[in-house]
Amino acid sequence: MFSVRSVLSKSRPVLLLQLKPQLTSFIHTSAKYSSVKVAVVLSGCGVYDGTEIHEASAILVHLSRGGAEVQMFAPDVAQMHVIDHGKGQPAEQESRNVLAESARIARGNITDLAKLKASNHDAVIFPGGFGAAKNLSTFAVDGTDCKVNKEVERILKDFHKAGKPIGLCCISPVLAAKVLPGVEVTVGHEEEQGGKWPYAGTAQAITAFGAKHKIKEVTEAHVDPKNKVVTSPAFMCETKLHLIFDGIGAMVRDVLKLTGK
Amino acid sequence: MFSVRSVLSKSRPVLLLQLKPQLTSFIHTSAKYSSVKVAVVLSGCGVYDGTEIHEASAILVHLSRGGAEVQMFAPDVAQMHVIDHGKGQPAEQESRNVLAESARIARGNITDLAKLKASNHDAVIFPGGFGAAKNLSTFAVDGTDCKVNKEVERILKDFHKAGKPIGLCCISPVLAAKVLPGVEVTVGHEEEQGGKWPYAGTAQAITAFGAKHKIKEVTEAHVDPKNKVVTSPAFMCETKLHLIFDGIGAMVRDVLKLTGK
Repeated sequence: MFSVRSVLSKSRPVLLLQLKPQLTSFIHTSAKYSSVKVAVVLSGCGVYDGTEIHEASAILVHLSRGGAEVQMFAPDVAQMHVIDHGKGQPAEQESRNVLAESARIARGNITDLAKLKASNHDAVIFPGGFGAAKNLSTFAVDGTDCKVNKEVERILKDFHKAGKPIGLCCISPVLAAKVLPGVEVTVGHEEEQGGKWPYAGTAQAITAFGAKHKIKEVTEAHVDPKNKVVTSPAFMCETKLHLIFDGIGAMVRDVLKLTGK
Repeated sequence: MFSVRSVLSKSRPVLLLQLKPQLTSFIHTSAKYSSVKVAVVLSGCGVYDGTEIHEASAILVHLSRGGAEVQMFAPDVAQMHVIDHGKGQPAEQESRNVLAESARIARGNITDLAKLKASNHDAVIFPGGFGAAKNLSTFAVDGTDCKVNKEVERILKDFHKAGKPIGLCCISPVLAAKVLPGVEVTVGHEEEQGGKWPYAGTAQAITAFGAKHKIKEVTEAHVDPKNKVVTSPAFMCETKLHLIFDGIGAMVRDVLKLTGK
């Protein structure tokens, strides 16, 4: 976490940070898909105003196990707002930057989304969280009239055009549904089932965009082979964390397979 | 992520949040250790000024798979400082609260650390991250002269006295080393090995506290059976994320076993 030399000499924390090692190896691996380069697009840090933390972490664990080389990106824009996650309310006076907050998940190793080029990667993955519906699009406010961030739209279209797989989970499939005509995605079930699928109505929005919704369980991923789009419900389901982790694993493995490497 | 009813009716985001469901089931499970209640103590949200996000998430995934019932806690105090994780520098003008930021990892479901009683839980687990050395103790600044937060000290002593297991990873074992005389812990290796163990010198601080340091690999946990303290190196090792995930899994499983349930 820090240089012990400086700890033992009681240096100030600022110095400790200057001495931090380049923590890059945790996302650089050499297993099965060692030649596969995957971009992961974040939208902040925290379910209610940014990326859902456990979804992002699960994606990174599964990519690491698959041996992929990961680079993380986020837009250098202000968050729509800041939510005090303890109180469940907006912190009215506060402003945070999506790239800076996403860097918390990326342990500092993150790049401006404007620099993400499909030609440099074999696949792209979008975790969920309110950030996808607030900072990467206006879906949380505008519903089916939403706009998608221009860089996000460019990236989705570029990967799609290049025939490179796109993975999305939780609420993020609405981004693909809005941008890629006729794409097949899942956000889980289409009925609430007594609270198990509290956001089941999202499937209606998917359909309203002209996309196709496919019903899947939380441990499953849906593959649209024609469009190379892979989606998994994740926290759209009210369930145990390890099942969400496993469903994200299914999505990541299908994305890696679709790279053809 | 939000009520689709409100999305489709274009309600304001503030309303969306009021409509958020009680997302508690992701930490309430019913598998092998379904009667085991585990407290997890957070220290913010982000490796350089709070809890290491991937360590916390890994702990929660493994506890969920083990069937434990989890409750998360953090102290209601100001962070030592706020680090802009993109720039790797302190954000001088900013102040954040440890409990509020920890709530990002806990998806809002978190309690003031002052309310954590050993009598209500079968075990307690501390993930790492700079937060453990900045907000739960002063180790990052004071090294072996550090002080430990009074609530953290009380909790460690109470669980220890009650014979209930304590799990810690990454830099957090220094908390146990400081508070529990003669305890055995690991922070990994004692030599840097060309950058693989950049914080190897932490073992010296452990020894200076009068505790015993045990060398372990990143995928292993060390069990001190007498004190029921279980530790794992996690991000003290410069390695692949899934190996850190697996080592944390070993720690969590040993903690659950030691509860005797």
